[in-house]
Amino acid sequence: MAEPIEFYFDFSSPYSYLASEMIDELAAKYGRRVKWRPMMLGAAFQKTGLPLLVTVPLKGEYSLRDFSRSARFYGHPFKFPVKFPLATVVAARAYYWLHGQDCAKAREFAHAIFRAYWMEGRDISELTVIQEIANGLGIDKDALTKAVASPEIKERLKSETDGAIAKGMFGAPYFIVDGEPFWGADRLPQIEKWLQTGGF
Amino acid sequence: MAEPIEFYFDFSSPYSYLASEMIDELAAKYGRRVKWRPMMLGAAFQKTGLPLLVTVPLKGEYSLRDFSRSARFYGHPFKFPVKFPLATVVAARAYYWLHGQDCAKAREFAHAIFRAYWMEGRDISELTVIQEIANGLGIDKDALTKAVASPEIKERLKSETDGAIAKGMFGAPYFIVDGEPFWGADRLPQIEKWLQTGGF
Repeated sequence: MAEPIEFYFDFSSPYSYLASEMIDELAAKYGRRVKWRPMMLGAAFQKTGLPLLVTVPLKGEYSLRDFSRSARFYGHPFKFPVKFPLATVVAARAYYWLHGQDCAKAREFAHAIFRAYWMEGRDISELTVIQEIANGLGIDKDALTKAVASPEIKERLKSETDGAIAKGMFGAPYFIVDGEPFWGADRLPQIEKWLQTGGF
Repeated sequence: MAEPIEFYFDFSSPYSYLASEMIDELAAKYGRRVKWRPMMLGAAFQKTGLPLLVTVPLKGEYSLRDFSRSARFYGHPFKFPVKFPLATVVAARAYYWLHGQDCAKAREFAHAIFRAYWMEGRDISELTVIQEIANGLGIDKDALTKAVASPEIKERLKSETDGAIAKGMFGAPYFIVDGEPFWGADRLPQIEKWLQTGGF
């Protein structure tokens, strides 16, 4: 069986949210699975030296318009949150802990986090919000709370982030398909052609 | 008749070259014309404070791969030039002079400049190269040489660049469709939907 597609993202990235609503279906169409890998986008910004997109003169204003328009173009609900950016470290750690228990539940949790932030504007930097979302999915919130403070899980997120950077990741979403990197929700058509043709 | 699409570009921008091969056909499909407007992208970089894309750690290496892959994806010949970046001021001035004489010839000249640089790697910063390309299109090269040194043409390029920035331009290609800005060759599908639906 072909290797899964690697999908690196940060829960605070709007284009990652949009991609998260589409990548599994696209992959499945070509008999492929997707490895979801949250990481800390801030670490990539330290490597590139680039500022946060929305703070860049002219480009920042455009980007706010493009986030919403792209969401309408793809047909996914979207509302730019009042609190932006925010820390996604607790959510990402919770994901890796869950992933060690139950992959399908971890995927469900990731969707719930993305939607809580990008549709409802909930403050996903707060442990209490993560606990509530987890609780709603039948996840043991006490075990989650303990896990996100554990050295192993902290290390896992760090090593996933370092691993993504070692593979050239500088922004999100970042995909690797059979060794080929693709950056951005707007590269899904190129990913589809790559899957169709085995590379072009 | 509907307003033309505004297409702002710099001859030194690879994604502008790719867009230049596609935008007229896309617009024509919806009964629209396109105003081609070369400008000085460096002036936008001064506004945004962003570095040249190819020099950014990680992102620069990715971009080189993405230029070529995007060209293959769209089906247009492409070879990254040895000399990059380079000054496009002479080519852009020549365009505006020609545009004052003969719009169709100016469009033909713009295609020739883009292709000379992005297919053949010719040094389009050199007046002699611009003269040769103009000559091949039956353009009076002495009149061109005089025109690109004239204060009126210099001022025209400056005012077009300032005008683009005033409309939010921060990168190229940059399109305005009925007041809505779109950045990047990868936004052509959104432009198409905009033209189809009158906005979404």
